[in-house]
Amino acid sequence: MFEDTKAVAFALDGTVYRGSKLIDGIDEVIRHCRKLGKSVFFLTNNSSETRSQIFHKLRNMGIDCTFREVLTSGYAAALYAHRERLTNIYVCGSKNLVSECEKLSVHSVEPEEAENMLIGLDPEFDYEKLAIASNVALKVDKVIACNKERSYPGEEDCLMPGCGGMVSSVEWCSGRMVDLTIGKPNTFMLKEVSEQLGLAPEEILVVGDNYDTDIVMAGKFGSPAIIISSHVYGDAVSVENVGELLNLIGEPAKPE
Amino acid sequence: MFEDTKAVAFALDGTVYRGSKLIDGIDEVIRHCRKLGKSVFFLTNNSSETRSQIFHKLRNMGIDCTFREVLTSGYAAALYAHRERLTNIYVCGSKNLVSECEKLSVHSVEPEEAENMLIGLDPEFDYEKLAIASNVALKVDKVIACNKERSYPGEEDCLMPGCGGMVSSVEWCSGRMVDLTIGKPNTFMLKEVSEQLGLAPEEILVVGDNYDTDIVMAGKFGSPAIIISSHVYGDAVSVENVGELLNLIGEPAKPE
Repeated sequence: MFEDTKAVAFALDGTVYRGSKLIDGIDEVIRHCRKLGKSVFFLTNNSSETRSQIFHKLRNMGIDCTFREVLTSGYAAALYAHRERLTNIYVCGSKNLVSECEKLSVHSVEPEEAENMLIGLDPEFDYEKLAIASNVALKVDKVIACNKERSYPGEEDCLMPGCGGMVSSVEWCSGRMVDLTIGKPNTFMLKEVSEQLGLAPEEILVVGDNYDTDIVMAGKFGSPAIIISSHVYGDAVSVENVGELLNLIGEPAKPE
Repeated sequence: MFEDTKAVAFALDGTVYRGSKLIDGIDEVIRHCRKLGKSVFFLTNNSSETRSQIFHKLRNMGIDCTFREVLTSGYAAALYAHRERLTNIYVCGSKNLVSECEKLSVHSVEPEEAENMLIGLDPEFDYEKLAIASNVALKVDKVIACNKERSYPGEEDCLMPGCGGMVSSVEWCSGRMVDLTIGKPNTFMLKEVSEQLGLAPEEILVVGDNYDTDIVMAGKFGSPAIIISSHVYGDAVSVENVGELLNLIGEPAKPE
């Protein structure tokens, strides 16, 4: 069904792993894709860890991948800021997001000097940071959110607040909406994959578990998609578990 | 114009004081109301300080008032919970809100035991508290917000996040909206004044500086209102400064 696709972009949290646990069978699916000669990418809205941390996490879980194949919304936001030459950015996010920005020479300035702001997930977010960000939001040119995810799954079925929890409170307190959300469902990361590989949108298959981010992004970009979900979505190919992906993604590779 | 009103309900932040500074002339207006035989009340959406703290703050600023005349959204929420006999309430708010609840025998339980939740302004709000509140929101019967104020004025023209900053992030992360907002513009506090004094809505004059909370509340309850603002609102009597209130509120008291 997706034999003609030349690359597969996997979501991470909920698709490849959940917390610190690899999802059963996904490593085989990824190896299968590579055997079929497809490129593999990993796109995550995680903005509180660096690309490098996520790359190492995947390797430690036994997923064969390269640093270049991992894209995060934090890296994407830093890349956007770098390319658009946004000046004097106040980074409201984790230390990792600040360091991700630094790598692209996007230096975080003090709130007083801010002309633009970037908001990412911050496990150390608190009232004082909310106050600072709300005041910065009122005076800057552009406010960019890494993403607006509501939550991600934590230990013992608890939900952990996503970047959207930070964004919504800053928006509410300042009365100013963010200008741009760079993570999924924005197509920025997918476009990056397409440009790196010189592939057309229809040649990249998106595999994810979140309709509102993964599948909507694929739809906006014109890419085919598979959602791993027990719920059936009218306009998406849906599988209940990872095992079913093997046959869908392409003719099984010949045994070696 | 408001000669027939028998009580005046003043908003606090922005009307009576701003931060730690009394607003010029408001003490004279309050004395004037009392001389005219009108009852005086103070209704605030502040939910991070107790009634007692605000009462003492007013007295220290030279405002003659009694404890009974001060109503806060935190006290009102505790009163609501007490009257509705809500059980096992998790209080997501300041220590002062917890203590305000205790005074009405509304004891804050641990998140695991929660059947209802109360959200108030908390200067110590952080990621962990957001995570707890979001998970509690998903399982309880009722979620009550003290108010949804965006911000209040802080030092040096900075805005300080209001209770709505907390509420919006919990709503966004959990996907569950609060069931009830007890502070202004809800009429709960104004109804309390009306019942305590046995007065009809039209006999209580609301004086405030915030259209969306003070004036909307008055409108919903059927009470007359004056807004102190340089902006003119179609359906509200508007004065630019506190001095103009003297003539509006009633025939000047005879000199003693």
